[in-house]
Amino acid sequence: MKQMECVFCQKTYSLDLFNLFCPECREPLLVKSPGQLLPVHSEKKSSLERHLGFLPSDEIIPGISLGEGSTPLLKLNRLMDQFNLPEIYIKNEMLNPTGSFKDRGTVIAVHKAVSMGIKTIGTVSTGNMAVSTAAYGARAGIKTLVLVSEETSDEKLYSAAVHGAILIKVKGDYGELFYKSLETGRKNHIYFINSTDPFRIEGYKVTAFELFDQFKEKIPTHIFVPVSSGGHIIGLMKAFKELKKRHKIDKYPAFIGVQPEKASPIAEAFLKGESKYTRIKKAGSVAQSINNPAPPGGNLVLKMIKELNGQIIKVPDSEILRAQSLLALYEGLFCLPASAATLAGLFRLKREKKLDPQDQTVLILTGAGIKNIKILDSSKMVILQTSLKKLDHTISSLLR
Amino acid sequence: MKQMECVFCQKTYSLDLFNLFCPECREPLLVKSPGQLLPVHSEKKSSLERHLGFLPSDEIIPGISLGEGSTPLLKLNRLMDQFNLPEIYIKNEMLNPTGSFKDRGTVIAVHKAVSMGIKTIGTVSTGNMAVSTAAYGARAGIKTLVLVSEETSDEKLYSAAVHGAILIKVKGDYGELFYKSLETGRKNHIYFINSTDPFRIEGYKVTAFELFDQFKEKIPTHIFVPVSSGGHIIGLMKAFKELKKRHKIDKYPAFIGVQPEKASPIAEAFLKGESKYTRIKKAGSVAQSINNPAPPGGNLVLKMIKELNGQIIKVPDSEILRAQSLLALYEGLFCLPASAATLAGLFRLKREKKLDPQDQTVLILTGAGIKNIKILDSSKMVILQTSLKKLDHTISSLLR
Repeated sequence: MKQMECVFCQKTYSLDLFNLFCPECREPLLVKSPGQLLPVHSEKKSSLERHLGFLPSDEIIPGISLGEGSTPLLKLNRLMDQFNLPEIYIKNEMLNPTGSFKDRGTVIAVHKAVSMGIKTIGTVSTGNMAVSTAAYGARAGIKTLVLVSEETSDEKLYSAAVHGAILIKVKGDYGELFYKSLETGRKNHIYFINSTDPFRIEGYKVTAFELFDQFKEKIPTHIFVPVSSGGHIIGLMKAFKELKKRHKIDKYPAFIGVQPEKASPIAEAFLKGESKYTRIKKAGSVAQSINNPAPPGGNLVLKMIKELNGQIIKVPDSEILRAQSLLALYEGLFCLPASAATLAGLFRLKREKKLDPQDQTVLILTGAGIKNIKILDSSKMVILQTSLKKLDHTISSLLR
Repeated sequence: MKQMECVFCQKTYSLDLFNLFCPECREPLLVKSPGQLLPVHSEKKSSLERHLGFLPSDEIIPGISLGEGSTPLLKLNRLMDQFNLPEIYIKNEMLNPTGSFKDRGTVIAVHKAVSMGIKTIGTVSTGNMAVSTAAYGARAGIKTLVLVSEETSDEKLYSAAVHGAILIKVKGDYGELFYKSLETGRKNHIYFINSTDPFRIEGYKVTAFELFDQFKEKIPTHIFVPVSSGGHIIGLMKAFKELKKRHKIDKYPAFIGVQPEKASPIAEAFLKGESKYTRIKKAGSVAQSINNPAPPGGNLVLKMIKELNGQIIKVPDSEILRAQSLLALYEGLFCLPASAATLAGLFRLKREKKLDPQDQTVLILTGAGIKNIKILDSSKMVILQTSLKKLDHTISSLLR
């Protein structure tokens, strides 16, 4: 049995799936990293199996997996040339089974649920995490509840509901719902796999191990990650800490966590040098997946980003939408605005002369754009009309 | 330079990108399979590079690839148990870069375009192929035209238009538009990468090679494939012919091409034992991606399926929609109806007692369900309402 730890209080606890926050300081508990050197099973085909030694599972059960991970790393030559940028790579997390990085976390948490005999899982989410949890719940044959805020449109829920998850719209404060779900989970023996769940975070580590492999055991200078609850970047940073502990790397990449200006409580605290963030009243960014006024992992992000010498920055919605468009137009990558925030962040660092031409940067593209087609500005699209008869003429005049 | 061949006239031709149908019989030309034994570069990480010897490219250019292929093979234990079915595996083509198998073909065709100095590419499609061609066109920096029928809703085009493709709605017969596009392509030096393009078909072969690897050089007894224009199943069958030529296999899997009843011209001809299909007036299936009244590769499919001893079957829309729902509910796989037609086909063969308990079947899931969320029947979904205060009560009564 792996031990849990609070990195704030520096205390360890034994695992209780229904109490995953520190009883003293209320910050998220993490799975304690093992002290010994861990083997990488490089002969294994699946990414999870290769890195099993780093994960809180004894085995990967094929009947739970949906084939998550092993996502492509692509170099963005055209964008680099066009805007005179240093080397840019993207890690395409959109190619996970339900179209977002969440699957990497869900699969590990569902393994934990199955191994502990849990009959019902749940999550609080309106987007990527809801779909991911519903899909893996269906695959494993576990009843799944998804709690959403009252205002969520039904249509947004269809891709979770199609998997048979029970959707519950809850009237009241959405931030409060996060903690309320854990309380109701304890009472009803439902494992709520929310955004900062420690087993989710363990799953996110695998992205970092894949990057390490894909860069042939070197490391890029910068890794840009969208930041919402904080769970994702915490997992990535934890993985690099484990690599350093194993003496596989001698320094860290600079992690650049990116928040949208209209939902940037962690970036604000970082800028002021504070160790605790202040929740904001209302978040209003177009980047829904990172439009988070009260990130439960915020303080942990601040602590870890300081330790790793990274930074949390903010970017305006206008730059996020422009970056979304550039990725689609120049590189054929259609991602959600939250993912594009990473490119907006890179442009920002470039503008502030904080990047060198020799830098190697990675953008983690977290979610597929097709999930929110309504956000697109159709006024920028070229849609013409003609007839079969006039087709030749229309086309030759286009090419002239 | 690879040679092209007409398998009907048994003549070979040298490559002309603007004349990819046989000048004598008007059937699609194919790339002639090489006579010699071909190496598999098993040390290479990307699937295309491993199988380069089988492809009409001298190299894979990283700046054109979007990380297509290497899709997961998953076993569907829960469905098998629930419905007493033989072994079922799915090949998850939804995890290609733009969410469908089309990417495997597009990447090879765009390689060909780049190597031949083509400045503009195009396609005739309203769905998966439009998006795929637009994305790879953007990635390669090639101007891209997408011709669609007049009635297509703008919204359906957004995920292609976001990549900067020029969308042209054309008034007139959609079947005619296919051939008209090739004519206008010849005049204007535009390479129209339509559904039966021989380089697309070469790309689809790689799925079969991956299956061969994933089954550890054995072969499943049945492979179920949705059939529209015919390009996809032609590619898969061609690959198995090449494996047999290399003496890697000694018999073929039974290919089961599946069409929806309301758009089944190839299945009708197959049932009647005819070698040519008759185009139907109007196709009306809910499975849009295979709702094809006049498949340009139809006769070639009939010829090859006979040679390989497979069959083309049809299934009603009601069974397609049920299969779509079952894949989502039992296995966490949300695919387009066209993909689910494969499972409907499997149920049909089971019902007709044409499957043995020892059979190993593969369903090729071709496209992601998120692309057509509107088709879902929300009356079957569970969406409840409550308040923060009543949440405990709502949940505990749900679990009782």
